[in-house]
Amino acid sequence: MAGSTLGTIFKITTWGESHGKALGVVVDGCPAGLSLCETDIQIYLNRRKPGQSSITTPRKEDDLVEILSGVFDGKTTGTPISLIVRNTSQKSHDYSEIATYYRPGHADYTFDEKYGFRDYRGGGRSSGRETIGRVAAGAIAAKLLASMGIRVCAYTKSIGPVSISQDQFDKSAILSTPTAMPDVTASKKAEEYLAHCMADYDSAGGVIECVVDSLPAGLGDPVFEKLDANLAKAIMSIGAVKAFEIGDGIQVATANGSTNNDAFHMCHNKVVKETNHSGGVLGGISDGSRLVLRAYVKPTPSIFTEQSTVNQSGEDIKVKIKGRHDPIIVPRAVVVVETMTALTLADALLLNMTAKLDSIKEFYKHS
Amino acid sequence: MAGSTLGTIFKITTWGESHGKALGVVVDGCPAGLSLCETDIQIYLNRRKPGQSSITTPRKEDDLVEILSGVFDGKTTGTPISLIVRNTSQKSHDYSEIATYYRPGHADYTFDEKYGFRDYRGGGRSSGRETIGRVAAGAIAAKLLASMGIRVCAYTKSIGPVSISQDQFDKSAILSTPTAMPDVTASKKAEEYLAHCMADYDSAGGVIECVVDSLPAGLGDPVFEKLDANLAKAIMSIGAVKAFEIGDGIQVATANGSTNNDAFHMCHNKVVKETNHSGGVLGGISDGSRLVLRAYVKPTPSIFTEQSTVNQSGEDIKVKIKGRHDPIIVPRAVVVVETMTALTLADALLLNMTAKLDSIKEFYKHS
Amino acid sequence: MAGSTLGTIFKITTWGESHGKALGVVVDGCPAGLSLCETDIQIYLNRRKPGQSSITTPRKEDDLVEILSGVFDGKTTGTPISLIVRNTSQKSHDYSEIATYYRPGHADYTFDEKYGFRDYRGGGRSSGRETIGRVAAGAIAAKLLASMGIRVCAYTKSIGPVSISQDQFDKSAILSTPTAMPDVTASKKAEEYLAHCMADYDSAGGVIECVVDSLPAGLGDPVFEKLDANLAKAIMSIGAVKAFEIGDGIQVATANGSTNNDAFHMCHNKVVKETNHSGGVLGGISDGSRLVLRAYVKPTPSIFTEQSTVNQSGEDIKVKIKGRHDPIIVPRAVVVVETMTALTLADALLLNMTAKLDSIKEFYKHS
Amino acid sequence: MAGSTLGTIFKITTWGESHGKALGVVVDGCPAGLSLCETDIQIYLNRRKPGQSSITTPRKEDDLVEILSGVFDGKTTGTPISLIVRNTSQKSHDYSEIATYYRPGHADYTFDEKYGFRDYRGGGRSSGRETIGRVAAGAIAAKLLASMGIRVCAYTKSIGPVSISQDQFDKSAILSTPTAMPDVTASKKAEEYLAHCMADYDSAGGVIECVVDSLPAGLGDPVFEKLDANLAKAIMSIGAVKAFEIGDGIQVATANGSTNNDAFHMCHNKVVKETNHSGGVLGGISDGSRLVLRAYVKPTPSIFTEQSTVNQSGEDIKVKIKGRHDPIIVPRAVVVVETMTALTLADALLLNMTAKLDSIKEFYKHS
Repeated sequence: MAGSTLGTIFKITTWGESHGKALGVVVDGCPAGLSLCETDIQIYLNRRKPGQSSITTPRKEDDLVEILSGVFDGKTTGTPISLIVRNTSQKSHDYSEIATYYRPGHADYTFDEKYGFRDYRGGGRSSGRETIGRVAAGAIAAKLLASMGIRVCAYTKSIGPVSISQDQFDKSAILSTPTAMPDVTASKKAEEYLAHCMADYDSAGGVIECVVDSLPAGLGDPVFEKLDANLAKAIMSIGAVKAFEIGDGIQVATANGSTNNDAFHMCHNKVVKETNHSGGVLGGISDGSRLVLRAYVKPTPSIFTEQSTVNQSGEDIKVKIKGRHDPIIVPRAVVVVETMTALTLADALLLNMTAKLDSIKEFYKHS
Repeated sequence: MAGSTLGTIFKITTWGESHGKALGVVVDGCPAGLSLCETDIQIYLNRRKPGQSSITTPRKEDDLVEILSGVFDGKTTGTPISLIVRNTSQKSHDYSEIATYYRPGHADYTFDEKYGFRDYRGGGRSSGRETIGRVAAGAIAAKLLASMGIRVCAYTKSIGPVSISQDQFDKSAILSTPTAMPDVTASKKAEEYLAHCMADYDSAGGVIECVVDSLPAGLGDPVFEKLDANLAKAIMSIGAVKAFEIGDGIQVATANGSTNNDAFHMCHNKVVKETNHSGGVLGGISDGSRLVLRAYVKPTPSIFTEQSTVNQSGEDIKVKIKGRHDPIIVPRAVVVVETMTALTLADALLLNMTAKLDSIKEFYKHS
Repeated sequence: MAGSTLGTIFKITTWGESHGKALGVVVDGCPAGLSLCETDIQIYLNRRKPGQSSITTPRKEDDLVEILSGVFDGKTTGTPISLIVRNTSQKSHDYSEIATYYRPGHADYTFDEKYGFRDYRGGGRSSGRETIGRVAAGAIAAKLLASMGIRVCAYTKSIGPVSISQDQFDKSAILSTPTAMPDVTASKKAEEYLAHCMADYDSAGGVIECVVDSLPAGLGDPVFEKLDANLAKAIMSIGAVKAFEIGDGIQVATANGSTNNDAFHMCHNKVVKETNHSGGVLGGISDGSRLVLRAYVKPTPSIFTEQSTVNQSGEDIKVKIKGRHDPIIVPRAVVVVETMTALTLADALLLNMTAKLDSIKEFYKHS
Repeated sequence: MAGSTLGTIFKITTWGESHGKALGVVVDGCPAGLSLCETDIQIYLNRRKPGQSSITTPRKEDDLVEILSGVFDGKTTGTPISLIVRNTSQKSHDYSEIATYYRPGHADYTFDEKYGFRDYRGGGRSSGRETIGRVAAGAIAAKLLASMGIRVCAYTKSIGPVSISQDQFDKSAILSTPTAMPDVTASKKAEEYLAHCMADYDSAGGVIECVVDSLPAGLGDPVFEKLDANLAKAIMSIGAVKAFEIGDGIQVATANGSTNNDAFHMCHNKVVKETNHSGGVLGGISDGSRLVLRAYVKPTPSIFTEQSTVNQSGEDIKVKIKGRHDPIIVPRAVVVVETMTALTLADALLLNMTAKLDSIKEFYKHS
């Protein structure tokens, strides 16, 4: 099982390698009747494009999406939506050397162990370009959620030692800063930090936060299909993510029940919580408050410093990675976290419709 | 979808509520030929039993398991293994009051929102007793892994502010200390801390770590079925877990590539890593080194301090939770983390057998 | 993968062997709020009980069902419903001989080839008793459908050369005749035919038909999840079924388009079909007319005539099957076909709710 | 759920409509190391191309396949194989009229009921062109099976009243006759029959048979994932198939146990069956003998005779279907049956590897 399918009702299947002919995704189970055009998807893909600032690789990748099926007269038909992005700027000769050894921090060794050989060009299927399919599909999920008033928003929370200030939170900065930080001052400091890393032939990690507003209560299921469990899987399935938090996350380990519990109270005839330590999920089910999650992303493993490794002849060697690599993964991964969250929520939203017999009867009375 | 099934090949389905007649699990897809008896499972269930020390509830729950199917002449037959644990000590009258309001930090409110009503007795399906099925099934997965030399071991890493010392690591203490800490000194301090919490009518959180040794390289799939993504889902699906880490986890966000990459080198003709920041997984596939993961567990939400909440008539009220509750979830959740890890690995182990055509041909030549 | 789970939303997992301690099923994903008690299920199980007439085995099996979870205050809670039937009358010594050889027409040989050994007592997991879990779960599905006005009804259409007459169709006879034929005259003839078979130490086959009324249009999905494809899987997964038909079935092969097409016309402002050659499904999606399917069931393979086979030492031998066996599988399999149909439709009914964006928006506006 | 994904390990996802930009499929879970090029797939696609004789539509469809991912250095890499076929000859204006009414025997009405509207051009997703993805994916499955010596072969068994003679069976004729009959004489008669149908503005049905040789015993699982149940689903999911048989199929209903059972005997130290009424499957598991299945295919619903139907304004109308349509579906569906069978078997072959603990231990010892 290559494991390229995700979701139960809103189901996506991605395909493609860094240096193959194209990458893409099939979105199956999207409800019929959603307005959809290529621009809806392209604006999301543009957010993960490289070559846009000093802190991303100067590689040019246009990454233009084409809708091949599933849309008729400007609306989704309920049948599979196939999306394709042709590879245009990939140069295989850049990568011929790495065919012979295992890059530290990459999946080269584990692919060889699993499959017996690998497509070594630019990481093949384990390249960051694999996320093109996720982002394209997630753009559709986000549009579906938006049509119901649900808004998903991810941003860079920290880069190395530099964190955003909640007081300075400026949503518009997410798309305008090269760091995807919603805080212009912090972003400047982070850029300086990254400049130091690059000067040292090194790379940096960081944290991405994602918040979701206007999510109905009731999404997610008890036991294995908890909403936070599925979000964890979706986010941890993004390459380079090494930790996942919901709500207060790791801080709960040193908290007490009296400070960690969120009190309920009535507000305009609705049950609301006074605080949101839980991050919008109780018992694996959305509680109607803001969903808050975080992804911890490791530094880019491709660094220009000399490293020790082994080659395929089984010899210890020293290598210096060449090519064009971002000094940090975080800014371009922000839209990946946002779309993976959207995909998970879209599926949960559809799955939740069958929870109550009364609602089902009502549904079929109208239809 | 109630979401009580987990796994693709080694598949489990749990059932049962806190105060129903019984709880249990069906394990489907366990290979034929594994020696199995009730004692193999009971020793795992005993590790999650309450009433064993001052820091667990004095409730007595024998939780005796019965194998109902799938084992013949002392061996698994390849058909579903049904396990049942009868509820014996549950007293529903203890819980009549909580039927009328939503306990902070619990799933009462979200269950009502999702299903329209709930089994309020002891939390019903969202009770910690739900983990009985997981642990019983996971005991079988652990035995399967052990038969192939793979050892899974979880323990308490910290309770509130008290952490174990790696220098004092004493594996035998995991089963002998009431905290499940592999460090007798730290355990004593943690017990003191918990005594303070209890005196304050409060509760505490903590961290569980799980390590796996002798895991073959190659388990897990690229993209969505990454080994760490599935481990994250399995661990985050345990009630009260709010964060998940693999390897260096959250620390990668402030690390640099030069310090976070694990160099490869040759050792006795094998490729090994000099360090293990990755925690045993590269690109979502096991790399043959020790697997290391961590779960951050929130404090028990049932505390005896007065709390604000609302009742089902939509009034703001003050409540004091009654009954018998552990001041901390961590020690009894250690075996849950261990067995959820085992279940995920057993499934990945079986799924990995179809990765290479040569191996498949070899397999069918012998069979 | 032992393959004991069926369904996407309304999902069942069966377990148990002929001579184990018990058999049962876990029903996961049943919507909350359905009234349910053990009698609802028992009346279905009673229809598959043996010992009720001259044409079923005189074995006594009470097959009393117990609900272990998922029902509270007389209603389903949305969490897994666990059902158990204890084995009481099974006598293992009856079956000691068949441990040593492969019964023709049974799964003894294939189980040994697949699993390396088998639970030989009464066929183990491949026994007809395996259907207890299906019928118990299907009773719940049927109740869910009935609550929405959908009625599923199966009956014996033919036994050996004896077929029912549509002119004599008497629904009440299904439950009153030993053959489950809705035609008292045909049933008498069939009983005579079976008496001849038994006198010859032989057995007979037959055909089961199932019709569904008041099914909404729109159930089922194009391509692989066609409603008739899933019905085919569900019905062909019943042991001894060797062919499946929908609508005109095999007769379409010799029909012409002009006679096989069903013309549409308007009737009371609704689109209806003048004929129903399609059997209620067009393009894999229910069309609002009566669903009609058929299962062709082979003769009981356990016959008292001498047969040739091999033993586990690899010798050709002659055997005479002993024990208590029905001369025909059909009458007791009628309720199995009916419940497998109900299970498939319940799942399709729930899955269909996410097809249209407008309906989803409407749903969440009300909830 | 649009339902365009099939399989557990060897998993395919098809997409595309009759008159969209392209059609295609993603094959996920194909083992690494299988030699594969576009010609391997094209030869299968060519077998379903129209315009090749007087009994298929004169439409020209080149249907050239392109491999977009998953193959490197001429071998599968274990990652998703994306295949695309561009639509080139589709003319949408041919179909503008049918947008306004429901064609009898087609899915027009049920699509509208399910999704609220439909892509009416050439049937959209319910067109026969949907099978392009199945055939392309199945060509890979067939190559995988062939690499292990397993041969799948389908052919036309009958057209209308004309059946092949087993005595005249000539495998080479399958690819050379326009009917895909392995019997030149029968083929000629069938062509004459079809000429009559066409003269009457009518269409015909028929039967496709598929046989599989050298299939190992042990494939398939007891209970719901029986090999014949999954074959039934795969075959019944092909548009226009209305009945499915395995082995003796419908004839078992009038057989007796003494004639329907297959006796076992020893032959060259192997257990074999003297007859093959079972069609190669016992208890849902392959028994090592020839697999034999049959699909009953309805006449092409698009006929030039006047028919009664309703339009979208709810009026009874008379219509004559225009355009280019085959008078029979069978010959071009033969390769669809063959490839759907191959897909089901490839998945079962991979799933069967985890049945026995001893084999798993042996596998990991070698790897």
